[in-house]
Amino acid sequence: MRNRDPESGRSMPVKATTELLKQLRQMMKNTKYVQEPIQALFVPSGDNHQSEYIAPCDCRREFLSGFDGSAGTAIVTQEHATLWTDGRYFLQASQQIDSNWTLMKTGLKTTLSQEEWLVQVLPDGSKVGVDPFLLAADQWKSLSKAMKSAGHILVPVKQNLVDVIWNDQPSRPCKPLLVMDLSYTGMAWQDKIVQQRAKMTEKRASWLVLTALDEIAWLFNLRGSEIEYNPVFFAFAVIGLNSIRLFINEMHMEDSAVREHLQLDCDTAPSFKVQVLPYESVLTELQTLCSNMTSKEKVWISSKASHALCEVIPKMLRLQTMYTPVCIAKAQKNATEIRGMRQAHIKDAVALCELFAWLEKEVPKGNVTELDASDKAFEFRRQQEKFVDLSFSTISSTGPNSAIIHYRPTPHTNRTLSVNEVYLLDSGAQYRDGTTDVTRTMHFGTPSEYEKECFTYVLKGHICLGSTIFPSGTKGHLLDSFARATLWDHGLDYLHGTGHGVGSFLNVHEGPCSISYKTLLDEPLEAGMILSDEPGYYEDGSFGIRIESIMLVVPVKTKYRYLNKESLSFEALTLVPIQTKMINVELLTKKERDWINLYHKRCREVTGAELEKQGRPEALQWLLKETQPIAD
Amino acid sequence: MRNRDPESGRSMPVKATTELLKQLRQMMKNTKYVQEPIQALFVPSGDNHQSEYIAPCDCRREFLSGFDGSAGTAIVTQEHATLWTDGRYFLQASQQIDSNWTLMKTGLKTTLSQEEWLVQVLPDGSKVGVDPFLLAADQWKSLSKAMKSAGHILVPVKQNLVDVIWNDQPSRPCKPLLVMDLSYTGMAWQDKIVQQRAKMTEKRASWLVLTALDEIAWLFNLRGSEIEYNPVFFAFAVIGLNSIRLFINEMHMEDSAVREHLQLDCDTAPSFKVQVLPYESVLTELQTLCSNMTSKEKVWISSKASHALCEVIPKMLRLQTMYTPVCIAKAQKNATEIRGMRQAHIKDAVALCELFAWLEKEVPKGNVTELDASDKAFEFRRQQEKFVDLSFSTISSTGPNSAIIHYRPTPHTNRTLSVNEVYLLDSGAQYRDGTTDVTRTMHFGTPSEYEKECFTYVLKGHICLGSTIFPSGTKGHLLDSFARATLWDHGLDYLHGTGHGVGSFLNVHEGPCSISYKTLLDEPLEAGMILSDEPGYYEDGSFGIRIESIMLVVPVKTKYRYLNKESLSFEALTLVPIQTKMINVELLTKKERDWINLYHKRCREVTGAELEKQGRPEALQWLLKETQPIAD
Repeated sequence: MRNRDPESGRSMPVKATTELLKQLRQMMKNTKYVQEPIQALFVPSGDNHQSEYIAPCDCRREFLSGFDGSAGTAIVTQEHATLWTDGRYFLQASQQIDSNWTLMKTGLKTTLSQEEWLVQVLPDGSKVGVDPFLLAADQWKSLSKAMKSAGHILVPVKQNLVDVIWNDQPSRPCKPLLVMDLSYTGMAWQDKIVQQRAKMTEKRASWLVLTALDEIAWLFNLRGSEIEYNPVFFAFAVIGLNSIRLFINEMHMEDSAVREHLQLDCDTAPSFKVQVLPYESVLTELQTLCSNMTSKEKVWISSKASHALCEVIPKMLRLQTMYTPVCIAKAQKNATEIRGMRQAHIKDAVALCELFAWLEKEVPKGNVTELDASDKAFEFRRQQEKFVDLSFSTISSTGPNSAIIHYRPTPHTNRTLSVNEVYLLDSGAQYRDGTTDVTRTMHFGTPSEYEKECFTYVLKGHICLGSTIFPSGTKGHLLDSFARATLWDHGLDYLHGTGHGVGSFLNVHEGPCSISYKTLLDEPLEAGMILSDEPGYYEDGSFGIRIESIMLVVPVKTKYRYLNKESLSFEALTLVPIQTKMINVELLTKKERDWINLYHKRCREVTGAELEKQGRPEALQWLLKETQPIAD
Repeated sequence: MRNRDPESGRSMPVKATTELLKQLRQMMKNTKYVQEPIQALFVPSGDNHQSEYIAPCDCRREFLSGFDGSAGTAIVTQEHATLWTDGRYFLQASQQIDSNWTLMKTGLKTTLSQEEWLVQVLPDGSKVGVDPFLLAADQWKSLSKAMKSAGHILVPVKQNLVDVIWNDQPSRPCKPLLVMDLSYTGMAWQDKIVQQRAKMTEKRASWLVLTALDEIAWLFNLRGSEIEYNPVFFAFAVIGLNSIRLFINEMHMEDSAVREHLQLDCDTAPSFKVQVLPYESVLTELQTLCSNMTSKEKVWISSKASHALCEVIPKMLRLQTMYTPVCIAKAQKNATEIRGMRQAHIKDAVALCELFAWLEKEVPKGNVTELDASDKAFEFRRQQEKFVDLSFSTISSTGPNSAIIHYRPTPHTNRTLSVNEVYLLDSGAQYRDGTTDVTRTMHFGTPSEYEKECFTYVLKGHICLGSTIFPSGTKGHLLDSFARATLWDHGLDYLHGTGHGVGSFLNVHEGPCSISYKTLLDEPLEAGMILSDEPGYYEDGSFGIRIESIMLVVPVKTKYRYLNKESLSFEALTLVPIQTKMINVELLTKKERDWINLYHKRCREVTGAELEKQGRPEALQWLLKETQPIAD
């Protein structure tokens, strides 16, 4: 899937914001709420953990402006209320905001940047406030620099002003935790702590601060359901060389399974004793820790953690890296996690074979819409063992809608599938044993030669990246162009990255690796990492193509071995047929034809066996038909 | 060519440094020379302009330590004198330094980093000094940070202490300037100034500070010969919106051609009046300029300019970018420069055809050494019109020597070419119309199957990169892997970048573009840029292969045109045969065979015509033989 998709295009009543803005503007001047009056307030989308998806209680920009798209920043001054968002949301935002607001269309040449706008509307030396918990330290740094060069000062507003005026703000979710035993994780949380402490010792760090929700879930072998699509729960953690602090809603600890898992009632070694502290106390606790440190000690924190937390660590003591060692360890899946991911992908393939077999039968009748197909996909996935949820909102799109990279069908946009248009389905699920994400582009009639040509170029890119061999330690961004080379040859391209990391029953997007022309600060690829391979081609108003499989990084034997370095390649975990009807076979090399035939052979063998086992003859028939070898 | 090559491996008398170190240590404590006593002094290799190659007067680390390799840093404390250098120079450095010095071998696991070492030998809070003119602002920043985290403080030492004790320090060279007329540059310097001022206005910069010698040479359409291999002269420049300041040895202005070129004696418009100021006055002049500025103005300077100059610009006024607009404009060659570069490469190809024809005849007799071949190459190049100098010191290497990437033959290493070993020649020249750099790997007997196999993989990489099509605006680092893919497939690789920018009768290495896995801050490729394409493969103690041609970035027509974006590709300017004897033709695809045959056809037509015109029948015969099409 491609990043967060639009929340909806559904027609909402426009939100009346006059009273809210009046209250907010009062508070911006009131030293009961701010240290000094601020002339502007930034209201970004985001939470205390810099999560990609956020919980309802954190949708402050939406509450204030009425605009509920996933990306946008509001800035409020005494005179103005302005909302910046990108091309995906111009229409939606303009429909959702009232006349108090000005929409700023990011990406258009004539649109002022936030800094340029602030220079225009504010007197020199103004104070621009923002909740320091909602910005990552690196974002804070660059925004602060931009403000400074615009002649203003960025100041932290420690009490979130939107929260103050949000009367019916939902409370932070607190849903039961799920204990993940060794059969899923392959490593006890205590062993993970030992592993992390070794990394800390290497870097001379006495403390490791964790703020990313998936890192905390992974480290403690726990899962939650407090953010949609992401099996995480709200917490912070501070790991010491001899202590463990977990900042979390203490109600979670009433669950005896959790207590047992964390050994809260046992006589454990002090260094594995988990101190459970209130979620809200992380800042003061961290402050206290720092005040008791000698100047030779270090506190390790990611530059993607909030400015609020980074800032309480004195610069002298701060060891700031892009990624925490937990983020890096989490990315390299162990044998148990890999086995689970394989299993999850087989089940997911079964569900999709069922769906596609059903679509092939139903689409010609003209009664299947994008939403129907999306619902059906959900239904088939839910039938699979250990299904938990979807891993993101399904992109079910046909015809011109499939050209919209971040599309999500709504009653307003909902289009009927037909034998005359391509259908693109980008979807995935959370199973207790793994996370999936797969895109297939299908045609249920006869695709045009041009559609086939474009599909084939995308496929060639998918194969080229998927079959590339590279030395261990190569960074993903160095592989991105392999997926584009054939498209480039014909003057075509796609404006998104080619691959993202995927969690093991965790977030469908995870760092620190990716395959993209954009990300230059990715970590090297190593065996055991799992990424997507998803080139595409999109023609506005016409059609879109994307082929996405999830790939495991695996060691491979090569003829030679320069400097005794291991070579790596990819192995597809996704085992769903790629529609051969869409391929112009003449454009494939022999190597590419072999790749397709071998891939389909694996789909038959593995997914086919599971379909048989589950007693799904129609889907099996469809699979057998779709995996016929293509001619030499 | 690959970076700066070792200056020599020649056996030198060990330098006696006891007295020098004694004097230096006195000065480090003497507040007549330093503001406060410093506990350590860094002596880097480098000059006031952060040049890659430096003049004799700037070889301070060599003077102090005796070690004359191109890369190394000395650190002197009251107790220790330590020299860091890399693997290319371990042997040479150990032979050149006396017992006062400790050699620190960079790159070995057991070697302390400079910071680690300073932590060990200095008391906490020590002052570590360095001449702020010798470090780029970005280097200063990172070194200062490292010192800080090691508990020390990096301080600027404004008087260079090595200069004080260097009694017979050569004076800064001052050699006649060469005026480049429009037939070479295609653009008057005044028009270049206008172009730059437009960029400055865009960025709201009132001043542009230029410190890189090739940027100043390019902007003023002047060349010099004050640094070996680089046709540059010592100067700084500060361009205002209405004024031009050139800081240079005023003796240069006694040359009437230069006076006329710069219109020093004409009644020119004030905004094109060049104010000539003493080279040494740049710092104080810049300081004065800054003190007269309002807070809304900006001074544009590269973060690769010296810390000394960056630092006198108050942070508020400083617009710091990686590359100056001159650096970027210089990289995109205009039609006249491209014509010149083409011409230079044809002449260079003639010289190399002569050389290779001669080698083919002479090598079997067993009397040609690496130095002989290097001399002969020089001789043939010197016969060409508008020859000025070599563009770097020739890498003439055979057998195991060819595996040394930065090799340069010396009387000690000089090996005789034979029919049993590969021969790698990486060489280039400065012509008044252009700069060349070419590598060919040849065999004058019968290469082994393994040598051919490796050569063919390297060739496939060279072709893959050289024939790739990519959208305008793509950064070079995204193309680097194309040159490696086939080597990677077989477990092979090379540990250097694949391409560097080449100047137009300027430095053989220039920014802001490159093709490398290392450089992430390169600028996008655009038509008119000129880069090398030079993959290789090296087997220590055995043989080395590199195939390098200089490539012009050219627009190409593609079947489609996504978002109306122009597509680019490369056109080889180097027209010297690639030895087909070294190719295992079976490993080539049809497309690759066609590429080779077409390339050789161009060599025949273009270089052949020139050989004929120059009346060089033997070289022509050799060319015709070497460019026979390879069989399908």
